[in-house]
Amino acid sequence: MPPRKIIIDTDPGQDDAVAILLALASPDEMEVLGITAVAGNVPLALTARNARIVCELAGRTDIPVHAGCDAPLVRPLVTAEHVHGKTGLDGPALPEPQMPLAEGHAVDVIIETLRDNSPGTVTLCPLGPLTNIATAFRKAPEIAGRVQEIVLMGGAYFEVGNITPAAEFNIYVDPEAAGIVFRSGAPITVMPLDVTHKALVTKARNDAFRALGSRVGAAVAEMTDFFERFDREKYGSDGAPLHDPCVTAYLIRPELFSGRHINVEIETQSELTLGMTVADWWGVTDRAPNATFMGDVDADGFFALLTDRLARL
Amino acid sequence: MPPRKIIIDTDPGQDDAVAILLALASPDEMEVLGITAVAGNVPLALTARNARIVCELAGRTDIPVHAGCDAPLVRPLVTAEHVHGKTGLDGPALPEPQMPLAEGHAVDVIIETLRDNSPGTVTLCPLGPLTNIATAFRKAPEIAGRVQEIVLMGGAYFEVGNITPAAEFNIYVDPEAAGIVFRSGAPITVMPLDVTHKALVTKARNDAFRALGSRVGAAVAEMTDFFERFDREKYGSDGAPLHDPCVTAYLIRPELFSGRHINVEIETQSELTLGMTVADWWGVTDRAPNATFMGDVDADGFFALLTDRLARL
Amino acid sequence: MPPRKIIIDTDPGQDDAVAILLALASPDEMEVLGITAVAGNVPLALTARNARIVCELAGRTDIPVHAGCDAPLVRPLVTAEHVHGKTGLDGPALPEPQMPLAEGHAVDVIIETLRDNSPGTVTLCPLGPLTNIATAFRKAPEIAGRVQEIVLMGGAYFEVGNITPAAEFNIYVDPEAAGIVFRSGAPITVMPLDVTHKALVTKARNDAFRALGSRVGAAVAEMTDFFERFDREKYGSDGAPLHDPCVTAYLIRPELFSGRHINVEIETQSELTLGMTVADWWGVTDRAPNATFMGDVDADGFFALLTDRLARL
Amino acid sequence: MPPRKIIIDTDPGQDDAVAILLALASPDEMEVLGITAVAGNVPLALTARNARIVCELAGRTDIPVHAGCDAPLVRPLVTAEHVHGKTGLDGPALPEPQMPLAEGHAVDVIIETLRDNSPGTVTLCPLGPLTNIATAFRKAPEIAGRVQEIVLMGGAYFEVGNITPAAEFNIYVDPEAAGIVFRSGAPITVMPLDVTHKALVTKARNDAFRALGSRVGAAVAEMTDFFERFDREKYGSDGAPLHDPCVTAYLIRPELFSGRHINVEIETQSELTLGMTVADWWGVTDRAPNATFMGDVDADGFFALLTDRLARL
Repeated sequence: MPPRKIIIDTDPGQDDAVAILLALASPDEMEVLGITAVAGNVPLALTARNARIVCELAGRTDIPVHAGCDAPLVRPLVTAEHVHGKTGLDGPALPEPQMPLAEGHAVDVIIETLRDNSPGTVTLCPLGPLTNIATAFRKAPEIAGRVQEIVLMGGAYFEVGNITPAAEFNIYVDPEAAGIVFRSGAPITVMPLDVTHKALVTKARNDAFRALGSRVGAAVAEMTDFFERFDREKYGSDGAPLHDPCVTAYLIRPELFSGRHINVEIETQSELTLGMTVADWWGVTDRAPNATFMGDVDADGFFALLTDRLARL
Repeated sequence: MPPRKIIIDTDPGQDDAVAILLALASPDEMEVLGITAVAGNVPLALTARNARIVCELAGRTDIPVHAGCDAPLVRPLVTAEHVHGKTGLDGPALPEPQMPLAEGHAVDVIIETLRDNSPGTVTLCPLGPLTNIATAFRKAPEIAGRVQEIVLMGGAYFEVGNITPAAEFNIYVDPEAAGIVFRSGAPITVMPLDVTHKALVTKARNDAFRALGSRVGAAVAEMTDFFERFDREKYGSDGAPLHDPCVTAYLIRPELFSGRHINVEIETQSELTLGMTVADWWGVTDRAPNATFMGDVDADGFFALLTDRLARL
Repeated sequence: MPPRKIIIDTDPGQDDAVAILLALASPDEMEVLGITAVAGNVPLALTARNARIVCELAGRTDIPVHAGCDAPLVRPLVTAEHVHGKTGLDGPALPEPQMPLAEGHAVDVIIETLRDNSPGTVTLCPLGPLTNIATAFRKAPEIAGRVQEIVLMGGAYFEVGNITPAAEFNIYVDPEAAGIVFRSGAPITVMPLDVTHKALVTKARNDAFRALGSRVGAAVAEMTDFFERFDREKYGSDGAPLHDPCVTAYLIRPELFSGRHINVEIETQSELTLGMTVADWWGVTDRAPNATFMGDVDADGFFALLTDRLARL
Repeated sequence: MPPRKIIIDTDPGQDDAVAILLALASPDEMEVLGITAVAGNVPLALTARNARIVCELAGRTDIPVHAGCDAPLVRPLVTAEHVHGKTGLDGPALPEPQMPLAEGHAVDVIIETLRDNSPGTVTLCPLGPLTNIATAFRKAPEIAGRVQEIVLMGGAYFEVGNITPAAEFNIYVDPEAAGIVFRSGAPITVMPLDVTHKALVTKARNDAFRALGSRVGAAVAEMTDFFERFDREKYGSDGAPLHDPCVTAYLIRPELFSGRHINVEIETQSELTLGMTVADWWGVTDRAPNATFMGDVDADGFFALLTDRLARL
């Protein structure tokens, strides 16, 4: 099987960075056609910068990085510097990127890529708010039908929320965009907090990154050190959930994850529950399934895969 | 310590029945001043009937049973015959009650009982929608400050919902009433699905009821048989959650339960998430705590207590 | 035709006072069974006081005045001292009332009055937020079917709003209560701002009150002087709208008013438009009519009637 | 003064057609840089077709007509064939357009036009739902600051609504887009139903169109004949409101219109009042002004202008 062609839509973020590195380390399974930056964890200028830092860290200055939307569809931007630090990539000391942004707005790149490739051959990997994807779908509605799969990190059901008691950050930031994507008819696979909170970077797992002895290994270990500080304080857990790499890991070894094909609706009408992914896990409604909502992960398998692949960079 | 004076506000329901039986079997710990019926699992005429059937089953025709509100504050009534059967007490063959309803509307009985007893000496035990309690609090606002404690079954956080993907039945049916109660300032202890889904009537536990060899034991076993049919089919679990008896068990042995004193808000603005109890378990908001939200139960201890006490009837 | 039996539910308010005086001056057309006070223009303690002041001004200390709900069903109370002054009856110097409040909560008085009289013989005249009426309807649902007519002041359509750009005060203060009343099935006649803003107390009309030469005439003139200050500043209009007396005038001479029997829904879901009376004046929906929504008044006829009747006190 | 450079964003619609004709007939006052079509009165394929029919009717095949968004930002499209007929231009027999659509998505054309012209020199004239404008503002946020003025037809305050009891069609169809535009900071002038319902095409006024003796005059008369059928039946008024030409007339003779610079918010949270333009006409809130909301028009002056200009085509 040839590698899957993917676009990574992202707001790095330390865990986004690891997800990108995992993709770039796995050319047999996926070909990264481009990276599109969106505002989210930090403002657009920083996410567009951070995406390039990560490409350079991987030695892949050939990957086109495009800037996209700088704010959610209909709401003001909310960011998460309290988790990711001021730059979004706090932790390791990494140089400012030398590679320029690629020409073309992320929205147009997504549209054109889907138009230029055969239907069903391009996968979208959103790791942040879904603003770019939704705007592309609204500007060129026919492309939703050409998507092979959308594999996204976002939402929560039994884990309920992180940015609010009811909502996960990526969906909360742009719930209207999420609604557009979940109603688009494109095949969707969701990596919610239910999964990612089972993928905790324990000390042993972080030591394994560091033990790679490479620049990438050190950077990943330092990013995770920084990142986990937040969750350890808040949840008292053994380590930080490594959210976004679940997306790219799924493209390599889908059997690590299990879930249900169910209906998922996005709350957009109430401030209190804004951005909740209302997942009909128990089938109590008659709403049609529109997403495969993952619920579990083989965490040891996931970290073994991740460490193994990062070793290749 | 003298027994706590309680009013049980209820919409029986098989699990309400067991909760009432547990209370009536525990006179050292609680004195049941009265039972107030509310519409919920089944319409008011049936809940008012069922409450009396349970009193007669326990040989306690002296307990005054008052009828209350027949529909939620501002919404049409939703019932749950799909869970509880047509009568609400499907399962055992129990005779129609002979004891009459007591005079006085439930709302007035709640108000007068709180006024007639010293402040801080009456505990409310709501096992259904909070319509009666909220209406009493609205009609006579000063009584909220006279309540010793409200120990209620309702809501969910990590277990999220049962009647919808976002809401537990009791709160969903009358979310505005729940909002009034949770904002009332009265001390509140919540037994949500998070707890009750850990209190499953396995076959062994149900056999223990039956083995009591009494009329009450047989009836409880048959009620639970009926009740659990629903959850077994839906969740594939080992047995039905025994929701409401957690409330009265807590008044006997509070140490069986553990939870957090946190903020809980009720969703009333969106159809999709209506009735959700948005519990700030992780402290991500700055909203003031207003309830002790239980999260765990010593299930073996709970069932041992329950079986032991039912044996006394 | 014998006089109609009415209960006036009210939050005086200068215009409420005039409405009550008009009723008490018209014994051939209406028999005031009682006055029930509700929180609204000013808190309950003041509305219950003001209602008695008005009875004493009319020499009718025999009218039972009952206190009711002190806050809306599910929201905090909003008051309107900016319109009515600190006491709610600012303007004339009137003595503190000597008559006591009558026994019995307003909600129970409404329920019992409707139960004790033949169906279809008691009219409710709400001049403030609908909290008392709605609570009575919820506590004793069968009474809605016994009401002869509800003639209320509240809402707006083409005049849109006064307390917010979308809502009239009485409905805004307790929109959930209004929803209960408008869905109750009782026959409803609405006097919205569309009507009352056509019933302006010009200088000539106020002079006519003063020219009555009586204590009542002077008090009405002084109340209106005070009251109109607000609207003159805000709208630049010729005088203050005399809202509430439209209700009691309608019971004397209904032909002064014209309107449409249409659907009226109450907005309860959005802060921005909270309490709007969405009146389907043009018939663009297929929602069933539930109220006669007045749109016009013969203002000269109305003021002639009012002056003539006040002269009798 | 040189003519103002404008982009007409439109969903023709008979009244859109007249607005376009008025613009094309007034080259001294405005230069039409392009026409961008949006879904609204009828689906996008038809509005893109109709815009070209109108250009050809005016002999202006040089005007670039671009297709834009085919559905609102986050909601399904609602159309108005019950008003405009199946094609949107029902009435006159007009040939299918020969001129092709211009290259480029409407959203990009709007963005590039605003970028390519000096700041403050391009006026947007939206005559339909604000989807194209809002999408452009989201994709390229900096352009909002480059707009000279947005003069739009949409909304209502005292006239309240036409598609629902609370909302005017253009805003109702895409309330989220309207919210984006009204919050954009660009200078906005609104022609709501309050104005357009005072610009009625009476028989005399329509006769004046017909009396022009030209192909354009006949077409406008026949379009208006068709269009007014709806309003005459519904409102019993003297003729149809000629909504959209108010926009282009304003660019020629602004003194025909009067209004207030006030705050206007868009309702997006409640189904009942969805799309309402909550205009703070009376200044009862402290929300900052964001639009000039027109309230009156010199109807005779408006029709005289319109007839005079159409005579030039």
